[in-house]
Amino acid sequence: MASAPTAHGRLFLVPAPLDFMCRTQAPLNQVMPQATLHTASQLSHWVSENAKSTRALLKRIGEIYPLSSALQDQHIAELPRLVHKKGDHAAGIDTGILLAPALQGHDMGLASEAGMPAVADPGSSLVRAAHDAGIEVVPLVGPCSLLLALAGSGLNGQQFAFIGYLPQDAALRLQRIQTLEERALATGETQIFIETPYRNEALHAALLNGLQQSTRLCLCSNLSLADMLVQSLRVADWKKKGLTPDKHSPVVFAFGP
Amino acid sequence: MASAPTAHGRLFLVPAPLDFMCRTQAPLNQVMPQATLHTASQLSHWVSENAKSTRALLKRIGEIYPLSSALQDQHIAELPRLVHKKGDHAAGIDTGILLAPALQGHDMGLASEAGMPAVADPGSSLVRAAHDAGIEVVPLVGPCSLLLALAGSGLNGQQFAFIGYLPQDAALRLQRIQTLEERALATGETQIFIETPYRNEALHAALLNGLQQSTRLCLCSNLSLADMLVQSLRVADWKKKGLTPDKHSPVVFAFGP
Repeated sequence: MASAPTAHGRLFLVPAPLDFMCRTQAPLNQVMPQATLHTASQLSHWVSENAKSTRALLKRIGEIYPLSSALQDQHIAELPRLVHKKGDHAAGIDTGILLAPALQGHDMGLASEAGMPAVADPGSSLVRAAHDAGIEVVPLVGPCSLLLALAGSGLNGQQFAFIGYLPQDAALRLQRIQTLEERALATGETQIFIETPYRNEALHAALLNGLQQSTRLCLCSNLSLADMLVQSLRVADWKKKGLTPDKHSPVVFAFGP
Repeated sequence: MASAPTAHGRLFLVPAPLDFMCRTQAPLNQVMPQATLHTASQLSHWVSENAKSTRALLKRIGEIYPLSSALQDQHIAELPRLVHKKGDHAAGIDTGILLAPALQGHDMGLASEAGMPAVADPGSSLVRAAHDAGIEVVPLVGPCSLLLALAGSGLNGQQFAFIGYLPQDAALRLQRIQTLEERALATGETQIFIETPYRNEALHAALLNGLQQSTRLCLCSNLSLADMLVQSLRVADWKKKGLTPDKHSPVVFAFGP
């Protein structure tokens, strides 16, 4: 893509296993392709959501492919905290400093705590800045909870939207659920969203309360792990069976007609 | 999830590499995790978009893990053609027949020609019917072009929509592009869509014509392959550089503010 040859390094987007905050750990070579693990093992400059998690990931990768730089010699810069939750683009982060290694010719990695970086996670500002600086961006194959959940849900996978988080305020949340359901019923579009584990129950109760009986609601937790749970039922059946969500693991929620 | 123990088999959602219709083939063990390949090697009952493609996939898997049933002994049922493109749910397919092996106790696989089954591809009706029949659904980790493209785009990954295909009629297409851009600019939501290779150029030209100069447009082709291309530029820069899309490979398009 770069119009003139440069000595820039590349920015690899390195997915992480989906076991962050989960009770079960995924054997890394079972859920990540070899090329992803091998490429990651050869990097020594990182930008990440959390340096400690990235070190833990590198330790696991090093058990499969020897790391080209020892753990203590890895350079790991964290994405600024402020831009984590929302407005990834709005808040100015000093991408020049974060991308300095690539500009100096080093291949770099961008990593999240779980899943694909820059998808339902921070990092897109950095990717965008890399493009603008003529740095080649290389997304690597790995697990992504949103897509596993969508495929597993039986909901429409030909048209879907990822919403992020719903409002925490009960009245606003109910209003948002109903707006999203109207959109889903009018267009067929699946609505996907996430919640932090300790709010799973409250969100689930709000969904059973706010959605129509015939709407299909899917909850997925521990995707790709031994204790994976994919539950897809109509709202009426969730109520009838009295099922409740996992309170301890991140859950992906999805609903649609 | 099943309320009573059953002797049902499970329905595994088996991703395929992203090299279908591409010039370069991905070494399978480089882009698919071991657990996915091994699980697939143990199945002998399949539902697929295209039996010939699934046989080709099984042949490649068999070169890594011996197949539990020889190729000629694999049972592969095709999803009915009619429901392929749209209205996956609306059209009634006889899921009872397609799911019969699982109801009789056999583990089954659902496969697409490329990427994750039931995501931007047919199959969600079958997954839904499996849930309703108390058959456990197990999505396996593998490549998904939409998510690789989104991560690689530098566009907002915390809020996005997959649209499917845009209208083929030029006037309707332009109208749709502008409606989607209004939504993207108002909400920050990334708009993702796909096109068949021979229409890539026409769609790209329509986007350059219909979008605002400052909108960021990303085109990705050959994701996860050696000749992967991830191009993310503002519309004005696409025009200035005179870049054109790949005419021979499936392209994922995305845009946003």
